[in-house]
Amino acid sequence: MSLENLLDQPLNSWMAGGGEEGDIVLSSRIRLARNMESTPFPNRANQLQLRSVVDESRLTLNRLNSMDNHKYLFIELEKLTPLERNVLVEKHIISPNHAQEPEQRALIARDDATVIIMINEEDHLRIQCMMPGLNLLAAAELASQIDDILEERCTLAFTEQMGYLTSCPTNLGTGLRASVMVHLPALVLTRQISRIVGAATQLGLAVRGLYGEGTEAVGNIFQISNQLTLGYSEQEIIANLSSVVKQVVDQERAARTALMTDSKDALSDRVWRAFGVLRYARSISGQEALSMLSEVRLGIDLKIIDEVPGVVFNELLVITRPNYLQKMAGREELEPGPRDRLRAQIIREKLKGGKSSC
Amino acid sequence: MSLENLLDQPLNSWMAGGGEEGDIVLSSRIRLARNMESTPFPNRANQLQLRSVVDESRLTLNRLNSMDNHKYLFIELEKLTPLERNVLVEKHIISPNHAQEPEQRALIARDDATVIIMINEEDHLRIQCMMPGLNLLAAAELASQIDDILEERCTLAFTEQMGYLTSCPTNLGTGLRASVMVHLPALVLTRQISRIVGAATQLGLAVRGLYGEGTEAVGNIFQISNQLTLGYSEQEIIANLSSVVKQVVDQERAARTALMTDSKDALSDRVWRAFGVLRYARSISGQEALSMLSEVRLGIDLKIIDEVPGVVFNELLVITRPNYLQKMAGREELEPGPRDRLRAQIIREKLKGGKSSC
Repeated sequence: MSLENLLDQPLNSWMAGGGEEGDIVLSSRIRLARNMESTPFPNRANQLQLRSVVDESRLTLNRLNSMDNHKYLFIELEKLTPLERNVLVEKHIISPNHAQEPEQRALIARDDATVIIMINEEDHLRIQCMMPGLNLLAAAELASQIDDILEERCTLAFTEQMGYLTSCPTNLGTGLRASVMVHLPALVLTRQISRIVGAATQLGLAVRGLYGEGTEAVGNIFQISNQLTLGYSEQEIIANLSSVVKQVVDQERAARTALMTDSKDALSDRVWRAFGVLRYARSISGQEALSMLSEVRLGIDLKIIDEVPGVVFNELLVITRPNYLQKMAGREELEPGPRDRLRAQIIREKLKGGKSSC
Repeated sequence: MSLENLLDQPLNSWMAGGGEEGDIVLSSRIRLARNMESTPFPNRANQLQLRSVVDESRLTLNRLNSMDNHKYLFIELEKLTPLERNVLVEKHIISPNHAQEPEQRALIARDDATVIIMINEEDHLRIQCMMPGLNLLAAAELASQIDDILEERCTLAFTEQMGYLTSCPTNLGTGLRASVMVHLPALVLTRQISRIVGAATQLGLAVRGLYGEGTEAVGNIFQISNQLTLGYSEQEIIANLSSVVKQVVDQERAARTALMTDSKDALSDRVWRAFGVLRYARSISGQEALSMLSEVRLGIDLKIIDEVPGVVFNELLVITRPNYLQKMAGREELEPGPRDRLRAQIIREKLKGGKSSC
């Protein structure tokens, strides 16, 4: 996979669906925060020091390329246009923060985008591994392999007492953040979501929107992740999150069953109307598209809608984001009007492929 | 045409579209109010007197049947179920008032429903002739022929000074009410409709909703008719109404052109979304159906939507009315829930016939 593929293909392999509880858990992610021992944290480092981190990271490429059958790309963010960087954010490849200030920042990406290493984001190195469905263990195992390779090359900031040292104290210790992206339309529809979010928070987890901290839960998609790392082992963090996510998944399934039992007609009307809007609208905002896509996906999961495969939903989640749309249109700037019309057009074309309906 | 046809076929011939200005003027109607000379008006007459009016009217059937190539049906309203009577109202064949108290009330209907004579409604005889499009003259000519036949048989209440005597003084003189049913979505959309209604009222016309006096203008359909008959000749009434309607049609066309010039994208999105709702909803109220149908019809007229012929709109206007729906379902009583689902189902089936969309 080239950089072009990374930017142009709507789906990373971990977004293609499938995996355990794959109808509700869209993806699992493990992130490890690591820093070079002898270099100040990125927010304290000067340009030269940051440069040395970039250069040193690049030297791990050979080793990474020989690790498995995958190719690894090294991308300096300054060499991308702002639009390209924003597309990477929309594809959940890099963080919004990483995209905003590209100087001395880089990224290592495995060809299928399953492994991403952000360089000089909040920490010198942020290793991310993503898997479809609920599969934190496999993601953690892969992250650990990558971590080992980095440690072969670099001396990382680590103390026996504190564990890995990180820019923000909440990441101290394992430097691990585990998170899953879940689609919870039935819990939202039945107004149980605030209770669930409250309970998860009390269990030391954070619940956020589609694009991380400070973003809204558009399209009924939530990120659930651990808040603290200090004092817990990797295994504990992953086991705790997995267990809570499984409970949330059970609650979502129960809410779906209740909806199908108590108000199947209303639900059916609702998801088909959402399908009708997506199928025929000539202009649609990103927000509305996500919200309609979420309802259609629920309809697909509950076998109310059989016109489109579920993966179209995952694909459209990315395709209909503003920057990806502009990239597709070959434009750096697209006014909201033309953008909303282009979005509607692309959605119509994607949904047209389906079988004819009854 | 049998009674069953009259009840079951969604479209009377005058509703099948076409005619002058047929995209905006759905139909033209002439109604003549007539009363027997020696019998009290219906609200003053006893059962025996009302009976004699029914019997005497029935005697005109032979003469009517020999008038042209059409057959005339004689229907005593008491012999219909309440549901059947309500279907006739929804098809604009009889008035809501006529359907409500069926005792000693009857109706003569030409097989294509172009001619209807209501017996013992507000007046002893109410002759109605309906034509597609803007065609009040042809309707008036036909009404006048029917009137002549009735006069051959019955002595009608008439004085040189007052003209035809009628139960309500507003009908005195010619006894004529001319009305047209117009579809004015662009004037509603551009918020010019109240100005138009105000102007028409000042010119001595009445503007009402789809089902006459006291009904709302659902589906952007309005009835425009003359208010007064006393002191005006038939020709004057018809010429005045025709002239105002032509102006209203011009205004509607101007509003459509303006919409297409200034906000084609928004309009296109709007009418396609309405189509999407009708095409996929699993439950839809009568009110919403009419409103969506109106927008789709506008889209068809403006060649934005090419998936369905305009006549489907006229057909669905009738099919989706509550009583007609119940008749189709073979049920006297249908709860709103099942009714809204049946309505949505029938609309989906009708619209499925169209070409596949882009």
